[in-house]
Amino acid sequence: MRRIERREELKVEVSSVLSPYVEPLATIKPGETIEVETYDAFGGVIKPGQTYAQAIERGIELQPNPVTGPIYVEGAEPGDTLIVDILDIELPELGAQAVIPGFGALEGWLKRLESETKFHRIEDNRILFERKDGRTITLKADPFIGTIGVAPAFEAITSLAPGPHGGNMDCPDVKPGNRLMLPVFRPGALLSLGDVHALQGDGEICGTAVEVPAVVKLRVNVEKGYSINWPRVESSDEIMTLCSARPLEDAVRLAFLELIDWMHRDYGWDRMDAYMYLSLTARIRVAQVVDPLYTVAAKLSKSLL
Amino acid sequence: MRRIERREELKVEVSSVLSPYVEPLATIKPGETIEVETYDAFGGVIKPGQTYAQAIERGIELQPNPVTGPIYVEGAEPGDTLIVDILDIELPELGAQAVIPGFGALEGWLKRLESETKFHRIEDNRILFERKDGRTITLKADPFIGTIGVAPAFEAITSLAPGPHGGNMDCPDVKPGNRLMLPVFRPGALLSLGDVHALQGDGEICGTAVEVPAVVKLRVNVEKGYSINWPRVESSDEIMTLCSARPLEDAVRLAFLELIDWMHRDYGWDRMDAYMYLSLTARIRVAQVVDPLYTVAAKLSKSLL
Amino acid sequence: MRRIERREELKVEVSSVLSPYVEPLATIKPGETIEVETYDAFGGVIKPGQTYAQAIERGIELQPNPVTGPIYVEGAEPGDTLIVDILDIELPELGAQAVIPGFGALEGWLKRLESETKFHRIEDNRILFERKDGRTITLKADPFIGTIGVAPAFEAITSLAPGPHGGNMDCPDVKPGNRLMLPVFRPGALLSLGDVHALQGDGEICGTAVEVPAVVKLRVNVEKGYSINWPRVESSDEIMTLCSARPLEDAVRLAFLELIDWMHRDYGWDRMDAYMYLSLTARIRVAQVVDPLYTVAAKLSKSLL
Amino acid sequence: MRRIERREELKVEVSSVLSPYVEPLATIKPGETIEVETYDAFGGVIKPGQTYAQAIERGIELQPNPVTGPIYVEGAEPGDTLIVDILDIELPELGAQAVIPGFGALEGWLKRLESETKFHRIEDNRILFERKDGRTITLKADPFIGTIGVAPAFEAITSLAPGPHGGNMDCPDVKPGNRLMLPVFRPGALLSLGDVHALQGDGEICGTAVEVPAVVKLRVNVEKGYSINWPRVESSDEIMTLCSARPLEDAVRLAFLELIDWMHRDYGWDRMDAYMYLSLTARIRVAQVVDPLYTVAAKLSKSLL
Repeated sequence: MRRIERREELKVEVSSVLSPYVEPLATIKPGETIEVETYDAFGGVIKPGQTYAQAIERGIELQPNPVTGPIYVEGAEPGDTLIVDILDIELPELGAQAVIPGFGALEGWLKRLESETKFHRIEDNRILFERKDGRTITLKADPFIGTIGVAPAFEAITSLAPGPHGGNMDCPDVKPGNRLMLPVFRPGALLSLGDVHALQGDGEICGTAVEVPAVVKLRVNVEKGYSINWPRVESSDEIMTLCSARPLEDAVRLAFLELIDWMHRDYGWDRMDAYMYLSLTARIRVAQVVDPLYTVAAKLSKSLL
Repeated sequence: MRRIERREELKVEVSSVLSPYVEPLATIKPGETIEVETYDAFGGVIKPGQTYAQAIERGIELQPNPVTGPIYVEGAEPGDTLIVDILDIELPELGAQAVIPGFGALEGWLKRLESETKFHRIEDNRILFERKDGRTITLKADPFIGTIGVAPAFEAITSLAPGPHGGNMDCPDVKPGNRLMLPVFRPGALLSLGDVHALQGDGEICGTAVEVPAVVKLRVNVEKGYSINWPRVESSDEIMTLCSARPLEDAVRLAFLELIDWMHRDYGWDRMDAYMYLSLTARIRVAQVVDPLYTVAAKLSKSLL
Repeated sequence: MRRIERREELKVEVSSVLSPYVEPLATIKPGETIEVETYDAFGGVIKPGQTYAQAIERGIELQPNPVTGPIYVEGAEPGDTLIVDILDIELPELGAQAVIPGFGALEGWLKRLESETKFHRIEDNRILFERKDGRTITLKADPFIGTIGVAPAFEAITSLAPGPHGGNMDCPDVKPGNRLMLPVFRPGALLSLGDVHALQGDGEICGTAVEVPAVVKLRVNVEKGYSINWPRVESSDEIMTLCSARPLEDAVRLAFLELIDWMHRDYGWDRMDAYMYLSLTARIRVAQVVDPLYTVAAKLSKSLL
Repeated sequence: MRRIERREELKVEVSSVLSPYVEPLATIKPGETIEVETYDAFGGVIKPGQTYAQAIERGIELQPNPVTGPIYVEGAEPGDTLIVDILDIELPELGAQAVIPGFGALEGWLKRLESETKFHRIEDNRILFERKDGRTITLKADPFIGTIGVAPAFEAITSLAPGPHGGNMDCPDVKPGNRLMLPVFRPGALLSLGDVHALQGDGEICGTAVEVPAVVKLRVNVEKGYSINWPRVESSDEIMTLCSARPLEDAVRLAFLELIDWMHRDYGWDRMDAYMYLSLTARIRVAQVVDPLYTVAAKLSKSLL
């Protein structure tokens, strides 16, 4: 199995963007299984001995959400779909979480909001959350890829943003055991990824989760001649569409339009039937409400298809 | 056990409003268990032999979402909290669902959207969904109270809208086995309810669910001197806050502010700790995105408190 | 000419609501000219010697935005339109303005936002704005009625909110020389008004303007059998529709739908022609972005009709 | 005076993007006056004999909103401000306007919305608007640059979108006689422009205006060491900030934050004074509510500074 290493040096035009203008880091064949080394969302700047506030004080600039890539997938052409099977995520021993001024869903809503950094130890797939009163709570890890996407057709988009190309969706369903599908806009698809979270709740409400560097194991394939508009995920028991917009209700609307389209095209549903049926059976995951666009997954159980 | 019957005649000022200006239908004592007969959201107008389109054609006006009430609860005073334990919901043999022009999350987004009515048989706690191609899908019922609330302090609010007083929240967690808490704004609280859904997905995306008249069994109590800003639900394994706003992200923000406040006041959490912790552990339910304000539940597992 | 005095005592159910459930304060005939005494938006609580912060400290509760009314207009029936010609506004010698925590468009956006109160002297139709550095700026007054509306069909709506019934629209075009049209939902229309501003910019961005009690001279008529959905204003040179919603773009959309409808119904425009024409000629006034719904006026010059 | 010609061939990666990755079309010196040939927003595809519907039928792809550029301005460095004095716009004899499915503020709101194309003759600085009933209305032209901006720091952004870099703001104040200021993110600033409108109303409500190719005369300067966050315009009598976001209220908030900052930094205003003062004196222009982000100008009269 191939291991794709992170770039040594971070440069914003190269590492903080999903872009057709960046030289591929590696080329793989369809069906290949790879291991990808990813950066944490803070680009390694927040670490023991250096909180967010200290980094700012020391004049250290944060590279916004660096990704590893792009990875050129042979044979992928515009109009195809990239199939990414997420096989495994290897976590480190420590994760960081920070409340950053100007960021987070309750910025301006919660009184006296200041920067705050926590480091969470990770042991045996468990996360140790330390409260200010000294009590420690143990949480089960549930790691996933926060940022993963292809190059847009002609835009270069910051790795902080999600969109039809994927990107910073921060959706906990993009995790080991599940299959992610992405539209292909450029030859080679140009896959990039990073921003693994060891654990995250719906909404990623404070703006960050348990942010970790990681090693992600993936198998990448190409479905020729099948095109989609937005990312999709298939788990063992659900199908889901992942759409991003502002305001949040537009992300919901887009995700349901895509889900109805999927049910119609692949499962033979009449569109109005699907619309009324989903009104009885759908599940919505609010992935995040903190990035430049908000991300929602509209889900249907496979047993109900 | 007391049974509270529906009013014979529907009148919009009386039955389609949560209001301090309507004469109580009944008075109960704290701790009393009652059975309440509720209307379906269409006020019985859509029924076998009369689709939504036919009702309109025949010039029959729909009473918007009629409720049974108000029920005066002795001893409830402004600043208290009303505790409503939902014990049981008795379903009829048929439910109706309609896509109504000008209503539904994909109105204007889904092409060729016309009015459409479906009747769903309900047998043995199962719902039979008939597709246009003749295939029938059997779904497990999961009934809940779509509209339940108290009288606002001095406004009279249409029963179509949700708000701090409860109302048309359409949240599937307001169901048998769970406890609903409502702020009290007026002496007697003036509880009203209706709009039972035999089943609903997240978002209630087409604007309606399996709409049924029902008999709802409740036990109502008053928590003196404990006041809340927005409705809350406690289930066997979760606590949750139910907030309503537009755009949808503001409903999310309000619900998390309330949840952080709850964790702080009743469980001793520091607010910043709670904010960061919920970013790792919270669940969000998008109850509905089709009513005058959108409703969201922010949830935390009790095992994680 | 008839003078309608303010109620002596303010009571929230009576004075802070547009409601069909409040006893009329006066009855007038169509065509009658009246003088109405109005409260300022703070109900007189903020005054020399008592800033907002001091009022809170002293435990004085603010009556939210009290109105004078309702005024029963003989002959007005649901489906008619109320015609309100605004003839004159008599200003006092002092106005108050306050930045109130939890209120204002930049709440949570502007750093270190605290309560702040200013008193503005009004002399010769000019407003004296005193800066913290002692410099005084003289502004021309341009008074208008901030809150004016009829009773809703069956709801009672806080006088802080705007809607199809009018209410707290805070639109500077509702001023002497202009004609306001309001839909009639209840017999007698039940007109209420208050919240005069001696001057306000677009958006009423800090949440308040030059808030004054005033005497407003109006002539009220009824247009029988002509019905509208939302308030409209006609000035000497413009027609405009006033709609309120969240998010703000929905207020824009509603206002243009109404304006296209007006052009179609009264001026013979094809709807698509009107839509394309307004894309070249319309003016938008953002009246306020601080109340429970945001208010927008879509305008067309009469010379372009 | 230098004339900068349009590229012969349109290519989306080159002409439909504001990007640091496109080779400069020309290099100019600070203080230089130039004439720039611009494309119309439809890239010349909609023309007499070819409506939008016909172009689609014929399988002709629209280049989205092509721009002329980028123009490298010597000496401009990140952190500087680009000063663009708009001197003149030369109009052609014909403009096109189209309602395009999936586009326009009333998409999904206005019944029976289909594609529709109109060609407007332009004579003597007047626009001839032909109604379906044959009547022609003469409108005074008021031309401006719809799309103008610099290269973002590291993103490449579609020329359909506005942002801190300028772009598709569609703000009628970017017109002859006025000065536009743009932040510089890249060496040379990399200015691009296009999408001249011969006339547009507030909101550009149907999605397009009188779309024309044109020749634009500009003088470009660099203000060294003065940095701004968002585009600004100065006219003979107003200062204004142009911000873009969704929902629309966030564009309003951003524009006022920037305006308060401007008043504070350049005119010595205390921020709270400025906030309260703008609540009395500001004007808001809703430039457009149809592009990927909505654009608002917050304005203050210079006589009131």
